[in-house]
Amino acid sequence: MALILITVMVILAAGPTWSSPSIIQMRPEKKTLLAADDLYCSSWRFTVETNDAGAWTRVPVRCVDFVKEYITGDLYASELEAVTTNAAEYARAIRISGDGRDAWVFDIDETLLSNVPYYAVNGFGSKIFDEPSFNEWVELAEAPAIAPGLRLYNELQELGFTIFLLTGRGEYQRHATERNLMYAGFSNWGKLILRGKSDEGTLASVFKSEKRKEIEDAGYIIHGSSGDQWSDLMGFAVARRSYKLPNPLYYIA
Amino acid sequence: MALILITVMVILAAGPTWSSPSIIQMRPEKKTLLAADDLYCSSWRFTVETNDAGAWTRVPVRCVDFVKEYITGDLYASELEAVTTNAAEYARAIRISGDGRDAWVFDIDETLLSNVPYYAVNGFGSKIFDEPSFNEWVELAEAPAIAPGLRLYNELQELGFTIFLLTGRGEYQRHATERNLMYAGFSNWGKLILRGKSDEGTLASVFKSEKRKEIEDAGYIIHGSSGDQWSDLMGFAVARRSYKLPNPLYYIA
Repeated sequence: MALILITVMVILAAGPTWSSPSIIQMRPEKKTLLAADDLYCSSWRFTVETNDAGAWTRVPVRCVDFVKEYITGDLYASELEAVTTNAAEYARAIRISGDGRDAWVFDIDETLLSNVPYYAVNGFGSKIFDEPSFNEWVELAEAPAIAPGLRLYNELQELGFTIFLLTGRGEYQRHATERNLMYAGFSNWGKLILRGKSDEGTLASVFKSEKRKEIEDAGYIIHGSSGDQWSDLMGFAVARRSYKLPNPLYYIA
Repeated sequence: MALILITVMVILAAGPTWSSPSIIQMRPEKKTLLAADDLYCSSWRFTVETNDAGAWTRVPVRCVDFVKEYITGDLYASELEAVTTNAAEYARAIRISGDGRDAWVFDIDETLLSNVPYYAVNGFGSKIFDEPSFNEWVELAEAPAIAPGLRLYNELQELGFTIFLLTGRGEYQRHATERNLMYAGFSNWGKLILRGKSDEGTLASVFKSEKRKEIEDAGYIIHGSSGDQWSDLMGFAVARRSYKLPNPLYYIA
């Protein structure tokens, strides 16, 4: 009985408020989110991931802890896995022509490379995007691979797809980007397409559509496309199937 | 102390397994989902709501309890609210011409009317769609309004939008649908468009695109569109802004 009582005291001390009527996420080692914030922020995340929210510049103040727990926790990893499983199943069912014209387009940031280490020391999306400090991080070329992204990337190559990397990063970041991709385990891409001088000031959705159009005009069939932003996937010359990866840290139009 | 002990016994009897290392959703009055199922099903829901999953015919067996808890709980209601807030903010910022040509397109099922009472007695999405029993439910004309949908509908009318209702229901269900809409509080729609004989066998995404094209060709500007399926929103003649509502119960291509 004494043991039960001690256990009980620990539970009562560490646990949530039992009178809370709603959803409470229990993560024993982590700060417990209030139920109302969890509900609000889960719903906010829904609107972000479905593109209902439209343009936004930073994570709402009350959702910063939520985003931190999400992006460093099991759910983000599990969602990345789930989307990758969808994409791999689709890709395996495609009859590859063997002429190298079957293509897949990947975005890079938050699709193949993770900038979570950068955002972890820069407020987890709570601050307005700071280009100078982000560019310093890019030059370090130490972003780790998103593990399911690397697995899909390798499987697509084995299946015979030509891989296009299409990123909003600038041409001046080509060398750092190549170095980082190789550091993280990526190799043998067909082409790495970055924003040139003439693409400056173009919306990402338009820039990426134009580049997909060029890929199609060169004779490729874009079977699939993976990106963490809707602007990676929508517009014109869209892939036959698009795979939206989660990202509650930032929005790109 | 006796009172605490009794409380404690109740908590220990009703609570989750404390050794679970991951996310546990606590809903004292409801069955507790296992952490692994919660993670799997949350991720499954992400792939469904972003359209990454593509076509699916029923809720995975291990996610039926998850879907039941979600759709009857606070999170579904909160997400519907959040999307509606996005849509209303966008609509309020539109300069209405006053000539009646500013339009909004609503889907009906799971957008304005809720079929959760039907799915509650038909396995919460765990069974293959059964047209005869669903049609009986439609003829009852007792589906309740989705409250945030009704609020948005009314606000759009006050703002001066012409409202089009565009549904995959058949012409033969027109009378029951009108009765149900009025029963649930909807009135004064501009036009109710259902599937005619010639639309049979057409994918919902194509049928709805064709009808939106006709609306545009008649001189309307489709500022916004609300639907719980991507096939309500994508294709051609898409609205300037689309609002994807949650629905983990079923998929329509």
